[in-house]
Amino acid sequence: MYKAPVEEIAFTLKHVAGMGEAMSNGLFGDLGDDLVDAILAEAGRFATEEVAPLAEIGDRQGARLVDGEVRLPDGWRDLYRDWIAGGWNGLTAPEAFGGQALPHIVNVAALEMWNSGSMAFALAPTLTMGAIEAVSTHGSAALKEKYLEKMVSGEWTGTMNLTEPHAGSDLGVLKARAERMPDGSYRIFGQKIFITWGEHDAADNIIHLVLARLADAPAGTRGISLFLVPKFLVNDDGSLGPRNDLFCHSLEHKLGIHGSPTCTMIYGDGRFGEEKGAIGWLVGEENKGLACMFTMMNNARLAVGMQGVAIAEAATQKALAYARERTQGKAPGWAGTGMSPIAEHPDVARMLLTMKALTQGSRAISYACAHAIDMSRRAGDSRHWQERAALLTPIAKSFSTDAGVEVASLGIQVHGGMGFIEETGAARYLRDARIAPIYEGTNGIQAIDLVTRKLPLSDGDQVKGFIAELKEIADGVRRSNLDGFGETAARLDAAIADLEQATAWLLKALADDRTAEALAGATPYQRLFGLVLTGCYLAKGGLAESGDGKGEGRIALCRFAAENLLAETAALRDRVVNGAASLAAARILLA
Amino acid sequence: MYKAPVEEIAFTLKHVAGMGEAMSNGLFGDLGDDLVDAILAEAGRFATEEVAPLAEIGDRQGARLVDGEVRLPDGWRDLYRDWIAGGWNGLTAPEAFGGQALPHIVNVAALEMWNSGSMAFALAPTLTMGAIEAVSTHGSAALKEKYLEKMVSGEWTGTMNLTEPHAGSDLGVLKARAERMPDGSYRIFGQKIFITWGEHDAADNIIHLVLARLADAPAGTRGISLFLVPKFLVNDDGSLGPRNDLFCHSLEHKLGIHGSPTCTMIYGDGRFGEEKGAIGWLVGEENKGLACMFTMMNNARLAVGMQGVAIAEAATQKALAYARERTQGKAPGWAGTGMSPIAEHPDVARMLLTMKALTQGSRAISYACAHAIDMSRRAGDSRHWQERAALLTPIAKSFSTDAGVEVASLGIQVHGGMGFIEETGAARYLRDARIAPIYEGTNGIQAIDLVTRKLPLSDGDQVKGFIAELKEIADGVRRSNLDGFGETAARLDAAIADLEQATAWLLKALADDRTAEALAGATPYQRLFGLVLTGCYLAKGGLAESGDGKGEGRIALCRFAAENLLAETAALRDRVVNGAASLAAARILLA
Repeated sequence: MYKAPVEEIAFTLKHVAGMGEAMSNGLFGDLGDDLVDAILAEAGRFATEEVAPLAEIGDRQGARLVDGEVRLPDGWRDLYRDWIAGGWNGLTAPEAFGGQALPHIVNVAALEMWNSGSMAFALAPTLTMGAIEAVSTHGSAALKEKYLEKMVSGEWTGTMNLTEPHAGSDLGVLKARAERMPDGSYRIFGQKIFITWGEHDAADNIIHLVLARLADAPAGTRGISLFLVPKFLVNDDGSLGPRNDLFCHSLEHKLGIHGSPTCTMIYGDGRFGEEKGAIGWLVGEENKGLACMFTMMNNARLAVGMQGVAIAEAATQKALAYARERTQGKAPGWAGTGMSPIAEHPDVARMLLTMKALTQGSRAISYACAHAIDMSRRAGDSRHWQERAALLTPIAKSFSTDAGVEVASLGIQVHGGMGFIEETGAARYLRDARIAPIYEGTNGIQAIDLVTRKLPLSDGDQVKGFIAELKEIADGVRRSNLDGFGETAARLDAAIADLEQATAWLLKALADDRTAEALAGATPYQRLFGLVLTGCYLAKGGLAESGDGKGEGRIALCRFAAENLLAETAALRDRVVNGAASLAAARILLA
Repeated sequence: MYKAPVEEIAFTLKHVAGMGEAMSNGLFGDLGDDLVDAILAEAGRFATEEVAPLAEIGDRQGARLVDGEVRLPDGWRDLYRDWIAGGWNGLTAPEAFGGQALPHIVNVAALEMWNSGSMAFALAPTLTMGAIEAVSTHGSAALKEKYLEKMVSGEWTGTMNLTEPHAGSDLGVLKARAERMPDGSYRIFGQKIFITWGEHDAADNIIHLVLARLADAPAGTRGISLFLVPKFLVNDDGSLGPRNDLFCHSLEHKLGIHGSPTCTMIYGDGRFGEEKGAIGWLVGEENKGLACMFTMMNNARLAVGMQGVAIAEAATQKALAYARERTQGKAPGWAGTGMSPIAEHPDVARMLLTMKALTQGSRAISYACAHAIDMSRRAGDSRHWQERAALLTPIAKSFSTDAGVEVASLGIQVHGGMGFIEETGAARYLRDARIAPIYEGTNGIQAIDLVTRKLPLSDGDQVKGFIAELKEIADGVRRSNLDGFGETAARLDAAIADLEQATAWLLKALADDRTAEALAGATPYQRLFGLVLTGCYLAKGGLAESGDGKGEGRIALCRFAAENLLAETAALRDRVVNGAASLAAARILLA
């Protein structure tokens, strides 16, 4: 059973992601170590003792559509009520609406734990937090006044309505339509698919944020507007009015996250009254909806990255516990009596250490991204930190979610035949994890974003400056003279050089308008970046003097990553720099 | 929907695996191209039109245990009857018992197609064929006379009963026991788990092959005997007698292959009569059961490899069809109207081409292994070919099954959000594929076998001779002077050099008794070998003059593999040669 790794989370957040230094520098006001530790400890307790025990029943029962209502798995309604009663939904929300205005990174750390407990459950607050962010950033004062407090408390949940059957990655072609009404409201019509937690019975109201198009809007992504469309209309005194003209038509039958209702939503077909059209209000300006949605999407991307970290952590814990208990055969050098624990077999040890390194690497990357977001709001050089967050977001999303799948799959393998049996629980992690590289922009879309929009930030100086910082970490390893690091310094040098060369090649290709060539290497580049960051952040952790007595283990894990996992960076650089021509030539096979 | 790639299969079998040359040399008697083509075409038709359409219902319904009886999914009983009526079960079985004594490779090709149609369904004949092999190789004349004809026809199916809850990879600790009876028969007692098709309603009888231990047997693997234990006792006239004392206690609830009943079998608890003990007969000699079981297991390992190939093929077909239809955005250079098919986007093209290359590579490796088995029985230098088959078996099993998982996972990714929806069918491939790297010896066990038992064959000359053959392929590419190959020759040279260095390092480590170090790199080495073979066999296919007009495509796929996938070989070699120390140091984290 999952046990929240509170100490490792606190360590990563303070000593690797940079929060400790920022706190020392007073950037977080009077927020101190003690409060952060207390919040993480309590979140860890709740995730371990309350959320995780209900994950399996959520998977087995799934969300069910009964007479147009979505029933959550047994116990989930109470779980959600208890969870919001703890104030967890508003950790980072504005104090004016009942939030605690804590740093983003604290919430991201908590999100990891909710997701390790149950990714399907954690999707509810994940979507609500995104909706809060969009409304608080772009909504009118009236909208904020009417909706935010209940959303921050979690009494009302939120959703994002983007996808339509023909419009997934390409939102420019969406067809949901909006009509202006004389009172300033709008009427929304259309079908939306894959709406996470679009309908359920745990909250009093559900606030849908819906992308739709006005009749006179320009074509493409510049003609999309964002609307707030509540399930129940809200009276001026805050009480709930009549049902709005929208409903959940069906639930998807999915590979994983069964407890999370994935809804097809129908807006404006007149089911709840004679007048057709779901009543909605504009968020932000007309035809500027996509920009508003991006406010949600960037945070959502990091939040999805946390799902990858979370599954990786939980799958690693499970596999390690099994590998310590299960005995088979005799490992070379085994001096004990009887059979060895399978963790003693070198191949199993390799799998477990790979799982640990990918988990800790993706955690560090994601927390660093969250810290950059915090710094962009609190530090002096906000543009630098905005860019750093922008650069890290696609890597945090893609590397972590790929790690989630890879680690969960390795976790099954460690369990042998038992891994394939559903009751063991290892298979659920793979089933749940498999959606994360897809939604919130597939990892291929993330790679396009990374290469074409993030590398060129500040004419390439942002990424170059980041690489320079990574070199300092490698230098630090060298200067440390610690035997435990083995060949780490040289390995980091080589990996960073691979990243530097690939980066330069891509920037040149973009400058030369060789976009197809650049995009051919975007995914290998993205993984290359993630691997280099994994090595560097593990090294930074190994170098940190936290005084928790775990330094030797951190250095050993860093060395394993440097001398085993980072061997891949040369191949990835090669694919970026030399792979495009053969890819283009082989496309005759796809015609 | 899956369509059997009969032409590509025939091409690979004849022009890559070596069957064409062997036929020309008269090693297969009067077996000619026409007959082979006709068999493959009819198998392809049956797999496409009869098996594949019942895969989804098999997955959805699964096998069910009702009142002690296992009910197969709707339609599967008739499907199985139709399948054996086609004579497919006895393709390679001895003619004396109704088989067709065809080359193993033809059956392996057919197995690919059954598994692409439905892996869960194909498991039934896969197990039966293994049982036929064991009985016909090691069984007494009386056992053969009584059982083989019905097993060859498929009227009776077969099983392998190895695993017990505490004895998976390590069979030496199994506890099932056997007692000698005065009439020469034995009584079997014990519990066996994970018994594929251990009970079902499609065959008149089920012939269980069961590993058990006599009371006076030596400890460990040298005290295991193999017994034939039929579900129904068979009278001397061949008619069925009373029920034997064994039954299916429960079915596993699994991640995939739902249609295949995975049974816990109980032997000898007296359910069907007053006298306890399942009646069985010895196969081979007492205490030599493991050697007999290995007869089944080696073929079973190649058969499991075919499951990987099969899933990879089916998943690739599905993803490619989707990627050609589905349009989103505009790919760079897209000159068509509206949105591009997603196959035009470089990142999607990379995924699809990776899927194609891994599918064709693992197919070629597996067919080459089957061909080596055939040659060991028909060519003059049988020892050489036995060793070649032995060397290729763990690679065929592991590389193909890893490819099955990787390709199925990429297939989901290509489908985007639809890939996560079960009705799409892409997710089933991943769920089914995930068991194949685990059973019949985990891929980690295969790697141990490859490094510690197969590399030392003929003092390392077998593997060295094989590498020399691979160099000739690379030379052939160079001599061909075909522009389409791009940098293939140089890439193959480098990859083969990586394999050669890693091989030499491992042989030295074994000679120096540094087993733990060798085993630390066994899995990377196994993948390295598979990747090199993929590149070389794709090149061999590209160089073949088959006259089917697909040469340009094959050369392009080879080039893609050489210039993109083979970039990984240096990293794998590095892990073998340099990875063990950091792995050993990091094991403090696993204590």
